[in-house]
Amino acid sequence: MEDIYPSRRARTARFLPRQDPVVHGEWTDGAPLSRAQAAQFEEQGYLVLEGLFEDEEIRFLQAEAGRLLGDPGALEEHTVITEPDAGEVRSIFRIHGQSRVIERLAADTRLADVARFLLGGEVYLHQSRLNYKPGFDGREFYWHSDFETWHVEDGMPRMRALSMSVLLAENTPHNGPLMLMPGSHHAFLTCIGETPEDHYLTSLKKQQYGVPDKDSLATLAERHGIAAPTGKPGSVVVFDCNIMHGSNGNITPFPRANAFLVYNAVDNGLAAPFGVDRPRPDFIATRLSPKQIIPVAGCLTQGVPA
Amino acid sequence: MEDIYPSRRARTARFLPRQDPVVHGEWTDGAPLSRAQAAQFEEQGYLVLEGLFEDEEIRFLQAEAGRLLGDPGALEEHTVITEPDAGEVRSIFRIHGQSRVIERLAADTRLADVARFLLGGEVYLHQSRLNYKPGFDGREFYWHSDFETWHVEDGMPRMRALSMSVLLAENTPHNGPLMLMPGSHHAFLTCIGETPEDHYLTSLKKQQYGVPDKDSLATLAERHGIAAPTGKPGSVVVFDCNIMHGSNGNITPFPRANAFLVYNAVDNGLAAPFGVDRPRPDFIATRLSPKQIIPVAGCLTQGVPA
Repeated sequence: MEDIYPSRRARTARFLPRQDPVVHGEWTDGAPLSRAQAAQFEEQGYLVLEGLFEDEEIRFLQAEAGRLLGDPGALEEHTVITEPDAGEVRSIFRIHGQSRVIERLAADTRLADVARFLLGGEVYLHQSRLNYKPGFDGREFYWHSDFETWHVEDGMPRMRALSMSVLLAENTPHNGPLMLMPGSHHAFLTCIGETPEDHYLTSLKKQQYGVPDKDSLATLAERHGIAAPTGKPGSVVVFDCNIMHGSNGNITPFPRANAFLVYNAVDNGLAAPFGVDRPRPDFIATRLSPKQIIPVAGCLTQGVPA
Repeated sequence: MEDIYPSRRARTARFLPRQDPVVHGEWTDGAPLSRAQAAQFEEQGYLVLEGLFEDEEIRFLQAEAGRLLGDPGALEEHTVITEPDAGEVRSIFRIHGQSRVIERLAADTRLADVARFLLGGEVYLHQSRLNYKPGFDGREFYWHSDFETWHVEDGMPRMRALSMSVLLAENTPHNGPLMLMPGSHHAFLTCIGETPEDHYLTSLKKQQYGVPDKDSLATLAERHGIAAPTGKPGSVVVFDCNIMHGSNGNITPFPRANAFLVYNAVDNGLAAPFGVDRPRPDFIATRLSPKQIIPVAGCLTQGVPA
């Protein structure tokens, strides 16, 4: 397969033109987003959806997150990622496969229909995780385009995926919220250098390859500025797979927590990785048995076994 | 001298009542702050002064900062503090003694008169420094009360000092701005444990003693919230010596820079430290020859030799 987004191959970084749409579906009156929302996603590369869930549903999700974080020993061991120094749990991967509640959340029409519209077809979960950034010493996530990694290390062919961050704690300006460079998704920034074997083992804690260079980041920030959407628990931040994003550390006492769902178009399933010999394991990048999502309507708390 | 603010002596933290005024001067029509500003400082423990300086003066200060940061070899070696891992300059101490421009800035009526009013008498510089938090990998400063350290390690007897941070780069919500807990200055939070010898050698890079405990910080944040004043270059953030403050790291490309001036009342000069045997050196805490500030009016750029 031809690699139209080559990265980590050259000694200098380049901005390559995006060769895929941002909004893949055609907007109609029946779309799950307003015309303005669709236009904003197209232009800015992200969208904040507020008030999607009832208080009862939010508490239900928070309780489930607490249950998962509180008993990591009950989970598949390799899916639990801890802080580099301290041992606190930072992320749990493949939560849609380990929690019926999260599986139900990902299939909810309020999320899945938006994903199906924006990606223009049927979707599956490329990745899911529960992120928990503790108060007082939450680490930063450096700037990156998700697609760069998914393409190089996972073999995702085209830009036809998106992420949804379902906030489980309040995002304030101070507790290290997600920062995005609005509009940066229109170009593909290549990264410098090659990727070592089994890079994922360390990259989940601290990224060292597939990292954008400082000059290009400065250009992007100058050109696009930085947005850091704040929101109450239950708000959902939807963002394009190629938008440049990251987050600062968090010394405030307020933790940050979200359920993170990556939807990919079924038609955009993984090929062989474009930059490494061995693809990352299935709990990070669904390859073996992608399950097409069948949207489910109704209250989250109904019909999910405890 | 009796220690009315004992800290780092016990195994549990306590909130002790503040036994000193916040605004030490009496407000009159001739005060350099409005009545509302004085009341805000009293209540909140901080104040943002905007538009004090002309553009020409701001550029003058920025150029001087660039000169100092660009040639650290020309400065007293021990006054230059670098990042823990990288070698980038993070702070330069005693800049009022190494730069005529900064000496002039500190004496400027627009700053010095505010300090003299709030502290109710003549003032001198307890400490000065140029802070530079680079873009991309600026580290955090953990929460602390300055007075706790100045009292325990420097022997500052009473709460009659304040800091002024003169912004030399824009403070945005994203580049790790100063965060304050408004109102937290009304109580003195004791820290746990004892201080090792020559603690300052490491504490300037990463504080390990004199650090507030998490439970108390959570209480303070819950009670007072967090404010992070943003501002253009030339804005001045004035804050009480006992307000709880800190800052997150900064992954944005935008550096943070400020000239930091600590004014202490001449009548509140340093005694023997209250918690260590040997006081910190003079470049961190003026002890040997405090110079009473004689306010100077007029444009900063006038009459300062290059």
